[in-house]
Amino acid sequence: MAGLELITVLALIEYAVFGLMVGSARGRFGVAAPATTGNPDFERYFRVQQNTLEALVIFLPGLWIFAHRVSHVAAFLLGVVFIAARAEYARGYIKSAEGRTLGARLTFAVNGILLLGSVLGLLLHAL
Amino acid sequence: MAGLELITVLALIEYAVFGLMVGSARGRFGVAAPATTGNPDFERYFRVQQNTLEALVIFLPGLWIFAHRVSHVAAFLLGVVFIAARAEYARGYIKSAEGRTLGARLTFAVNGILLLGSVLGLLLHAL
Amino acid sequence: MAGLELITVLALIEYAVFGLMVGSARGRFGVAAPATTGNPDFERYFRVQQNTLEALVIFLPGLWIFAHRVSHVAAFLLGVVFIAARAEYARGYIKSAEGRTLGARLTFAVNGILLLGSVLGLLLHAL
Repeated sequence: MAGLELITVLALIEYAVFGLMVGSARGRFGVAAPATTGNPDFERYFRVQQNTLEALVIFLPGLWIFAHRVSHVAAFLLGVVFIAARAEYARGYIKSAEGRTLGARLTFAVNGILLLGSVLGLLLHAL
Repeated sequence: MAGLELITVLALIEYAVFGLMVGSARGRFGVAAPATTGNPDFERYFRVQQNTLEALVIFLPGLWIFAHRVSHVAAFLLGVVFIAARAEYARGYIKSAEGRTLGARLTFAVNGILLLGSVLGLLLHAL
Repeated sequence: MAGLELITVLALIEYAVFGLMVGSARGRFGVAAPATTGNPDFERYFRVQQNTLEALVIFLPGLWIFAHRVSHVAAFLLGVVFIAARAEYARGYIKSAEGRTLGARLTFAVNGILLLGSVLGLLLHAL
């Protein structure tokens, strides 16, 4: 369980860093709060943070239920891939909108495996 | 507990589908990333996903604490209503902004019962 | 554990109130759904809710893991500070964009202590 807790905390630290990057991008691109639109360069930083939020809300419960019903080791490894996928998403998206594709697909794959694997594990448990 | 895990995973799969619908709406309505505004038809798809995110962050912890402190069976049934409420919210909101009312009210009712029921259960536990 | 559940539920009730305030601000400032931009007064209400969502996704898992690996009492007290910090954030941000600073810094401090404390607790546990 310590392994899943570590994955959880590291994914959240990564997400917090994306939040700090949005704050710094506000100054650099001249987008004062409360605005979140108006400059596409800023908006890509903002969408990195927001899309990671959207992904985390699936990832974190999925991680723990998958670990409980399918495999702790596989959950841990999928967690490592998730954290790497979000770093790649940020790296690519900050360069250009097209650059987000690989990170987005990896994230989608991890979350898909976590959710569908959990459903399968729960069905097998029910039988 | 398998019942609550199933509700959790199904609510997240529904949310992931809303995310896929946003992606497909980007192409259909010509709203390229990173933009999330500019076309009201697209924005309704986007708000379905975002509002479901806002609701899930209340729903998931509320579901589990309510189950722990009040009733597993009632939590499970409220979870079924939540998933149906979000489907109705999406169906209605995609048609028109006014169409979101019924789904929004049902969601608010479920989350309200989960939170206030949990407070009550915790207070009774403390006495 | 009842203490952490209470913190969790109270933080979510506060967040739900911020959501209700956005709904009421829509009417007051004439920003009809699905729009979320166009009026800076409305946008500050909207950002209070959204930023609290961004903070909660770090806070809730951080709170529980910190309690598990470091200290239940410290987690509970940090939770009280978080709820107060979000109230101050809302109070200040609704007045002006600059007014959000104190609440934002307090929130960042709490979430930072929860995440870094958890990493430290997990490392000590591993040794």
